[in-house]
Amino acid sequence: MPSYSARLSAAIRRTGNPVCVGLDPRWNNLPAEIRERSTAAGGSLWEQKARGFEEFSRRIIEVVKGLVPVVKPQAAFFEECGPAGMAALWRVMRHARQAGLLVICDAKRGDIGSTAEAYAQAYLGDDGDGPGQGGVDALTINPYLGADTLQPFVDAAVRYERGLYVLVRTSNPGAGTLQDICDASQTKIYQHVARLVEQLASSTRGTDPYGCVGGVVGATYPAELLELRQAMPHTPLLIPGYGSQGAKAADVAAGFGPDGVGAVVNSSRAIIFAHEKKEYAAKYSPERWEEAVRAATHDMIRELAPYCQPGTAQA
Amino acid sequence: MPSYSARLSAAIRRTGNPVCVGLDPRWNNLPAEIRERSTAAGGSLWEQKARGFEEFSRRIIEVVKGLVPVVKPQAAFFEECGPAGMAALWRVMRHARQAGLLVICDAKRGDIGSTAEAYAQAYLGDDGDGPGQGGVDALTINPYLGADTLQPFVDAAVRYERGLYVLVRTSNPGAGTLQDICDASQTKIYQHVARLVEQLASSTRGTDPYGCVGGVVGATYPAELLELRQAMPHTPLLIPGYGSQGAKAADVAAGFGPDGVGAVVNSSRAIIFAHEKKEYAAKYSPERWEEAVRAATHDMIRELAPYCQPGTAQA
Repeated sequence: MPSYSARLSAAIRRTGNPVCVGLDPRWNNLPAEIRERSTAAGGSLWEQKARGFEEFSRRIIEVVKGLVPVVKPQAAFFEECGPAGMAALWRVMRHARQAGLLVICDAKRGDIGSTAEAYAQAYLGDDGDGPGQGGVDALTINPYLGADTLQPFVDAAVRYERGLYVLVRTSNPGAGTLQDICDASQTKIYQHVARLVEQLASSTRGTDPYGCVGGVVGATYPAELLELRQAMPHTPLLIPGYGSQGAKAADVAAGFGPDGVGAVVNSSRAIIFAHEKKEYAAKYSPERWEEAVRAATHDMIRELAPYCQPGTAQA
Repeated sequence: MPSYSARLSAAIRRTGNPVCVGLDPRWNNLPAEIRERSTAAGGSLWEQKARGFEEFSRRIIEVVKGLVPVVKPQAAFFEECGPAGMAALWRVMRHARQAGLLVICDAKRGDIGSTAEAYAQAYLGDDGDGPGQGGVDALTINPYLGADTLQPFVDAAVRYERGLYVLVRTSNPGAGTLQDICDASQTKIYQHVARLVEQLASSTRGTDPYGCVGGVVGATYPAELLELRQAMPHTPLLIPGYGSQGAKAADVAAGFGPDGVGAVVNSSRAIIFAHEKKEYAAKYSPERWEEAVRAATHDMIRELAPYCQPGTAQA
């Protein structure tokens, strides 16, 4: 299997865009038909929700496959449904890969020593008949515990040809609480993390332009994105915050790098719940929600096109 | 239901010690009888492991109930077994609470906005018939994403009378990568986190001496532990790193506070895999592994006794 970064670059070039569709199912936003069917099938409230999340996610995957390179399921919403939700998450991730999409599992895990090894094995492992087998291309992880706690994830990513995205600069309003604190030499915490991540990216890239260790950099901070793209030339970026969180295409322009494949831009709610937005609801009746999803995906691809031409940069 | 900190203080006083037994099941360390039975019962490799982890954890709970105030299951090891492991984790946590133990779920979660709400609801929620209902007394969380991302967890902890432990200073060798970075005024990152956590503890304590927001401070850094106990007078501490990670009783002495109930000290491997240690193996044959666990628990209680007299401090 080619490396994660090689698979990702190929997928971006094949689809001609860097859109990542976030699978963040929320019960109250699901199309009514799915909620009704999931409820009617019975079981506990959480089994009903898990069933609805799975059907919804699978149908989103069917809409966006071939259109975009990658999807990003958010583990929390599935985890909230307990074991039934985790089972649904793994089936959704397998479905996405079988549909030809890359899968970034957004779980933001992090722990020490052999515990980190267990998480790495859970999400990136490829031995035996375990739950993670072939389900995940990349995982998001949290750097607060220190460099030694990232290493088990990096080792697993290298061993299994998977990828990682380390949180560098997140997209939330309060991201700066710790991330913006400056040391005596005016280096901010997120810049320290960026250096560490770039080292890991650089040391794992082999002959690829990018390593298997990426960074999460929020689209809601365009100046930091520009700075970090330059500071992390071998680091693939995952850029959340587009759409519902307020960032626009021009805000993410700096992220792609000279070859146009240095970043993927995630949008969750603005795509998967497009049927709730006035502009799409006016055009598509509720039962045509998948057409609204398709239209919103095409719109995002169009918005980004002036800033990202991945198909043309490769010799 | 009394607040988490009130329940915790009562449990420490009732048992007369601050020992937290970490439930970190690892397949290769399980007693042979459990591995054999789990394997013989069939299913996938991961279902077999989940079954073994559940039996092992339940039997540890039966040994330590009444002896110690609290247990801390490590989510990663269960999560590595996929949905079957998560189902086992929830059953283990319910079993522990039914056995009269408090349960700290060590999952180190963290995310933004409504995603953080989903994690908080998953672990701390108490509505309906969901997976987390009544399973968890407290959850460990990661502060890197910023103060606004802790708030949904704090809101849920207050609403459901649960607790939180925010990572402040972790016990791993590389903890200092980010946590020890100093700002221009010589305040370290972990000290910034400590201030934030103490504010949250203080604002949630009502008439209790401690709030529902605690801090994780590794036993492997005794100087920092002393400093943080003083800087965080209303913050209950969770102190990992005792035993197999190298810390001794004198190292954690500073953590308990003047009333002796300000901290719990976790030991995982040194207790639950006591049957593998020479000193216990010499005394207990392999099939008597539960007696080794009991002896190791009593030994840790005895080691800590000179430094922590929770029974006598309360008027």
